[in-house]
Amino acid sequence: MAEEETQRTLGVVLYPGFELLDTYGPLEAFGHLPEAFRIVQVAEQAGPVASAQGPRVMPDATLAEAPKLDWLLVPGGIGTRAEVDNAKLVDWLRARAATAERVASVCTGAALLARAGLLDGRRATSNKAVFSWVTSQGPRVTWVPEARWVHDGKFSTSSGVSAGIDMTLDLIAKHVNADTSEALARAMEYEWHRDPAWDPFAKIWGLA
Amino acid sequence: MAEEETQRTLGVVLYPGFELLDTYGPLEAFGHLPEAFRIVQVAEQAGPVASAQGPRVMPDATLAEAPKLDWLLVPGGIGTRAEVDNAKLVDWLRARAATAERVASVCTGAALLARAGLLDGRRATSNKAVFSWVTSQGPRVTWVPEARWVHDGKFSTSSGVSAGIDMTLDLIAKHVNADTSEALARAMEYEWHRDPAWDPFAKIWGLA
Repeated sequence: MAEEETQRTLGVVLYPGFELLDTYGPLEAFGHLPEAFRIVQVAEQAGPVASAQGPRVMPDATLAEAPKLDWLLVPGGIGTRAEVDNAKLVDWLRARAATAERVASVCTGAALLARAGLLDGRRATSNKAVFSWVTSQGPRVTWVPEARWVHDGKFSTSSGVSAGIDMTLDLIAKHVNADTSEALARAMEYEWHRDPAWDPFAKIWGLA
Repeated sequence: MAEEETQRTLGVVLYPGFELLDTYGPLEAFGHLPEAFRIVQVAEQAGPVASAQGPRVMPDATLAEAPKLDWLLVPGGIGTRAEVDNAKLVDWLRARAATAERVASVCTGAALLARAGLLDGRRATSNKAVFSWVTSQGPRVTWVPEARWVHDGKFSTSSGVSAGIDMTLDLIAKHVNADTSEALARAMEYEWHRDPAWDPFAKIWGLA
């Protein structure tokens, strides 16, 4: 999937209590490539959505009105604890994932994909501090406790919060090219962890 | 300034073309400490503000209506190129900084503080890729080309984009305590750069 020239529409799924850095770390990188990605923030209802940290953001479309989404990005956050039981959102994720080219989660966003059954039989990872809760949402998923991110088919899942930035740069390296990701990391003055096996937090949180 | 128990109101200055990660990296950390910091997103006008990367966010108050702000956070972004000539914003920054306990900028946000004269005679840093433009906005500032962040009195300035996260964790370590910042970095699964002299990007961008 290198050097793709067609713009992808990237749908970012917002809900009350989404985590700020899960969302805007990846969008910082994707947003620097407007020829490759058109970002659409989607949420169940119109109007501002409050993040887990308080600041509110403004969706572009409701779930029902969202255009065709080629890529899906599902952030985590404390709001996932309620949203795993939100059939409207979980059903929407299942339906939209079916036609998406790539589906990526950050942190506890993997719990939403798991509840939609999208990760069944696949390898996936998530936030290490709340790994037992996330894994309980997907008993048929092969959860990987020590990984910065995991790709399996069209699904990509990252570890907690800032891991989403590393996964995103890897996705861009594969979808566009590696030089673009290197240039983005330099522009963001970000020390990119290029190795998906780099995960000191697994040990910190007792998983390795 | 350790172990402060009074909640500070933290005003985050938004404008069209602000950089997402400059803003929501720091707010990810501040927002985990609601007892210490109440976040208020402020902008010149009411209604959604579009970031440099496209996604829109929702301010809580206009500049004119903002409550007393104990701390100010000024992100950078391509929008600073226009905002340095926005007297309303620059005058507001000068006035609010006078009564603030702490004023912090990320990336090219330092250009706005410089144009307000707030950094005159002080040490400060900024984004390394566009360092010459930023420094041209403050000829009486002692610009530091190699630094992840710089504190000088009540002013703190960070290098580009993700450097704001490191500066914020240092500010929290000093204002609350170091254990809190360590816990935040673990929860964010973020490899915190604790040394303000760590700046490989200065060399990459020809400044060291």
